[in-house]
Amino acid sequence: MRISRINEPHVFITMGDPSGIGPEIIMKSMASPSLEGLAIFVVIGDGGTMEAAAKKFWGGKISITSLREQREKCSFLPDVLNVVDPGGEIGEILPGNPTDEGAQKALDSLSAAVELVQKSSGRYPSALVTAPVSKERIASRSPGFIGHTEYFQEAFSSELVTMVMVGRNLTVVPVTRHIPIKDVAGVLTEGLIEKTLLQVIENRVIISGKEEVKIGVCALNPHGGEGGKIGTEEEDVIAPAVRAAKNIYTNIEGPMSADVMFYKAVKGGFDIVLAMYHDQGLAPFKMVDFDNGVNMTLGLNVVRTSPDHGTAFDIAGKGIASSESMEAAIKLAVRAVSQDT
Amino acid sequence: MRISRINEPHVFITMGDPSGIGPEIIMKSMASPSLEGLAIFVVIGDGGTMEAAAKKFWGGKISITSLREQREKCSFLPDVLNVVDPGGEIGEILPGNPTDEGAQKALDSLSAAVELVQKSSGRYPSALVTAPVSKERIASRSPGFIGHTEYFQEAFSSELVTMVMVGRNLTVVPVTRHIPIKDVAGVLTEGLIEKTLLQVIENRVIISGKEEVKIGVCALNPHGGEGGKIGTEEEDVIAPAVRAAKNIYTNIEGPMSADVMFYKAVKGGFDIVLAMYHDQGLAPFKMVDFDNGVNMTLGLNVVRTSPDHGTAFDIAGKGIASSESMEAAIKLAVRAVSQDT
Repeated sequence: MRISRINEPHVFITMGDPSGIGPEIIMKSMASPSLEGLAIFVVIGDGGTMEAAAKKFWGGKISITSLREQREKCSFLPDVLNVVDPGGEIGEILPGNPTDEGAQKALDSLSAAVELVQKSSGRYPSALVTAPVSKERIASRSPGFIGHTEYFQEAFSSELVTMVMVGRNLTVVPVTRHIPIKDVAGVLTEGLIEKTLLQVIENRVIISGKEEVKIGVCALNPHGGEGGKIGTEEEDVIAPAVRAAKNIYTNIEGPMSADVMFYKAVKGGFDIVLAMYHDQGLAPFKMVDFDNGVNMTLGLNVVRTSPDHGTAFDIAGKGIASSESMEAAIKLAVRAVSQDT
Repeated sequence: MRISRINEPHVFITMGDPSGIGPEIIMKSMASPSLEGLAIFVVIGDGGTMEAAAKKFWGGKISITSLREQREKCSFLPDVLNVVDPGGEIGEILPGNPTDEGAQKALDSLSAAVELVQKSSGRYPSALVTAPVSKERIASRSPGFIGHTEYFQEAFSSELVTMVMVGRNLTVVPVTRHIPIKDVAGVLTEGLIEKTLLQVIENRVIISGKEEVKIGVCALNPHGGEGGKIGTEEEDVIAPAVRAAKNIYTNIEGPMSADVMFYKAVKGGFDIVLAMYHDQGLAPFKMVDFDNGVNMTLGLNVVRTSPDHGTAFDIAGKGIASSESMEAAIKLAVRAVSQDT
């Protein structure tokens, strides 16, 4: 058994809800030759569930340790799949039948991941991949839980996190996310747009794999506001933010009418598109990249990626879940973490 | 020369800005074998411009009459392309160089079209196709001109007009159109959504070519409001409108998160999608159907269609403009008018 190299990248993967497709798509990804040897992989979740999934969907060797143990040494093996169990009873887990204990273990896996990422900081480069959880179930145990992004933002004390949807055809950054449409114009400030742009510029190689990218910025209003006739936010808020960001990086265009922007972007005219609100960016994105889309979070202590789908309880355990999006998420995490070295 | 049949459908086509690609794409469409004999075609615009365009891009026979003449008889020939000149001097027209006189003639062609449609009402079924105008240029002659849709709405004294974007991959109806994002939630009422749905249901065969269609209704907010956590308009406004419309026609689904809706629709899951606002529908639509999209207006005295692009002054006169969208617009008009008979 070889010893891990100095600075060998580590990818921490949280199990997600054990009754969902998480364990299955993690193991199917491990079975993919395209991921072999790219990094040291550490899955954080229930040992028994991961062992069963490994047997069923992979066949490779796993090494189960406890969080208590890893808390001190934070040391993982290069030739096996490392599993870190955060501890606690989980009871019987049946695919497709989520339980409170399962949701609790999924949540405990998130906090364990935060701990391991923090402890390993400075020892080796690391990235984080999350399998899907049931927000509703976790919220019933831990009120206030909204989702992975918000959880990690708090856990890592991050000021601004940016969500990036990376797909084969489009890469989209919604500047505002889960807020009602009536509040969008009010939340959208010059500062928020500029900071988001700067975070994207800083991470452009991680996002796109290349140094030179063309960034497009959507307008807020129809037809880009038509010179102020259909809204003034383009001139008052978005254009100044774009001008400010151009002092750092010049290859930015916009604000541009969203219906023109996505037509051009999908033909390759833009590498990264900033959308002003959720549906403006996500409706075009999911239309063409639903099956391979990866959700990336910037602004945390580590780059975090996740497949762009949910727990899919309806097909869990049937062996038919596609690991395409999970594999893409892991590859993107590897790219991010290799970028760091 | 044959005499037109009783009830033979008529398609009135307005020239658009004479310095734009309108005359070219009209004549290229006339040259398309797929349109031959489908209807009696009447182009309303400058006689000289249309004659020159016919020579350059078609080669067929045209018959030029004046609006004054047609005002009385409203009678057109089946074997030639009828051109009705609304009168007035136009001066020299150079492709790509819009003039005030050209814009005035484009506007006069619209009012002439309204007159002919009204005069011919009851004599034969008719539809209207509009080539692109320069809104800015017309507005500088006739302040208050916003666009074709609003012009015809006023000219025909229509209470509610609905814009339908018909493409090969998607058909989208934006319930609200050219208003700032901050005003969308306020403008969106249960009554407006219901009336729009009813207009779509009534015209579903014209829109889609079939009696049985599946209609999808988008939510307003991200994730469809997530049960009220991200906005309440889904429950308060959209769902009641959908329920009311289902009393007339049952095959309607929604409100559904827009990013799920368009993913499903583009795979054939929905024939017609109602979007709550401009970009929600138009960004996905133009991304996949920009080149072939047709803009259809319901709620006027006639069905009106138009290609989903502008005057394209930059390529006018070069002979490179694609008539794909114009031909699709004419075909859709023919379908609408044949439906009437």
